[in-house]
Amino acid sequence: MNKGQLLYEGKAKRLYETENPEVLFVEYKDSATAFNGEKKANIAGKGNLNNQITTLIFEKLQANGIESHFVKRLSDNEQLVRKVEIIPIEVVTRNIAAGSLAKRLGFEEGMALKRPIVEFYYKDDTLGDPLITTEHIDVLGIATLAEVEELYNAALHVNEVLSPIFAAVGVTLIDFKLEFGRDNNGNVLLADEISPDTCRLWDTKTNQKLDKDVFRRDLGSITEVYEIILQKLGGI
Amino acid sequence: MNKGQLLYEGKAKRLYETENPEVLFVEYKDSATAFNGEKKANIAGKGNLNNQITTLIFEKLQANGIESHFVKRLSDNEQLVRKVEIIPIEVVTRNIAAGSLAKRLGFEEGMALKRPIVEFYYKDDTLGDPLITTEHIDVLGIATLAEVEELYNAALHVNEVLSPIFAAVGVTLIDFKLEFGRDNNGNVLLADEISPDTCRLWDTKTNQKLDKDVFRRDLGSITEVYEIILQKLGGI
Ligand SMILES: Nc1ncnc2c1ncn2[C@@H]1O[C@H](COP(=O)(O)OP(=O)(O)O)[C@@H](O)[C@H]1O
Ligand SMILES: Nc1ncnc2c1ncn2[C@@H]1O[C@H](COP(=O)(O)OP(=O)(O)O)[C@@H](O)[C@H]1O
Ligand SMILES: [Mg+2]
Ligand SMILES: [Mg+2]
Repeated sequence: MNKGQLLYEGKAKRLYETENPEVLFVEYKDSATAFNGEKKANIAGKGNLNNQITTLIFEKLQANGIESHFVKRLSDNEQLVRKVEIIPIEVVTRNIAAGSLAKRLGFEEGMALKRPIVEFYYKDDTLGDPLITTEHIDVLGIATLAEVEELYNAALHVNEVLSPIFAAVGVTLIDFKLEFGRDNNGNVLLADEISPDTCRLWDTKTNQKLDKDVFRRDLGSITEVYEIILQKLGGI
Repeated sequence: MNKGQLLYEGKAKRLYETENPEVLFVEYKDSATAFNGEKKANIAGKGNLNNQITTLIFEKLQANGIESHFVKRLSDNEQLVRKVEIIPIEVVTRNIAAGSLAKRLGFEEGMALKRPIVEFYYKDDTLGDPLITTEHIDVLGIATLAEVEELYNAALHVNEVLSPIFAAVGVTLIDFKLEFGRDNNGNVLLADEISPDTCRLWDTKTNQKLDKDVFRRDLGSITEVYEIILQKLGGI
């Protein structure tokens, strides 16, 4: 597969066409952004780490019966994925209060929720990715109510598979963001990435943050903690 | 009924005990607040207007089979209500995009929604009354899921009754906020007030705003437009 035309450049990845109209070439960039792009940095090695971590996670999901857009890893910072029409909804699943949830509800960071919850955010940078409800999705017309139910169930399923995988290596899956798309047949497919950029991952014993909050909150070297995640997941 | 001890002073009303432990005395204040109390003013006559408008609306709801805490109006700015334990959820029903919904979703103010939607906000001034979902309500533990369904259905029912009542007098019910509480037997009861402070009301022909946005956005005399609403509803 060769890189064709650049289709889309986002904050973390570049997407290129391939000879196969159903397959895209993804290049993970060495850039970190936070707060809707307000905070930015170039971080050597980050693209490689996220490409490899995402690969391992999508492989583990597949081994547990959860399909995704992931086709195969091509190089340190490149992978092939199935092309989808992204549904502009960030699907966030939370086990433990942190970040915007802690702020919104006045919860202490680190407080366990009595059960996992799923939230939807409208993926729209100009609006600042606002929290939305199922009824907002309906009036926006960005997904059908049947799709919303699929997103909801898929998010909880991913949580059920990933939480014990992380727990087994001493990491707590605090929360994570998923994106989904529609394939050629209109079927909903898990897409984008699952990495320390899109998850909150805490060392279960020490509560050390092993995710993008290290960048957001200036807590140290982001590649150092992403390395820990990669190693724990069985990467080199 | 005599005013007993002051139980609670809010931004718009004072609540007093009466001889009857199940009944409260409500005094409507001459104060307007907006933006979570940041903008404040004393506006002579506003308390009278809201007390009278709320009375007329609760009476119309009751005539249409919707019970509320309202017992009776006592004077220009006083009424008796049944005491409830307020559920700290502001239940907002919207027919037309305006205010925070227009901002959140990027809709033009005045755009009709394809159907009425109901939103929940956590009634907590220190958190800024954030939008919450049913799952947030569940982990907050502030209402049961059965109660949430009751709030939802009650809000749509109120909308079905009030929209045509306003339409008949040339006013469009854009959106409105309700509060509910639990009575002694744990039954959910519509409470608080329904007034131009808690509704968006637009003149159907001219789109003139006849509600608190006149105060929020410095569009003129708030008592002048509240008078119009009172007269249209059949008040003096
Ligand atoms: N399989 C896919 N097909 C099409 N687009 C995808 C796929 N997977 C992810 N995308 C999209 O690729 C874009 C680039 O990713 P990223 O750099 O993370 O962007 P963003 O700045 O929006 O976070 C995003 O809009 C993402 O939704
Ligand atoms: N029937 C009732 N029983 C007990 N409390 C009530 C009842 N109706 C309204 N309240 C509460 O009375 C308080 C005073 O009202 P208001 O001045 O509008 O307060 P706020 O500043 O919270 O908007 C509010 O907390 C409201 O929820
Ligand atoms: Mg992204
Ligand atoms: Mg109030």
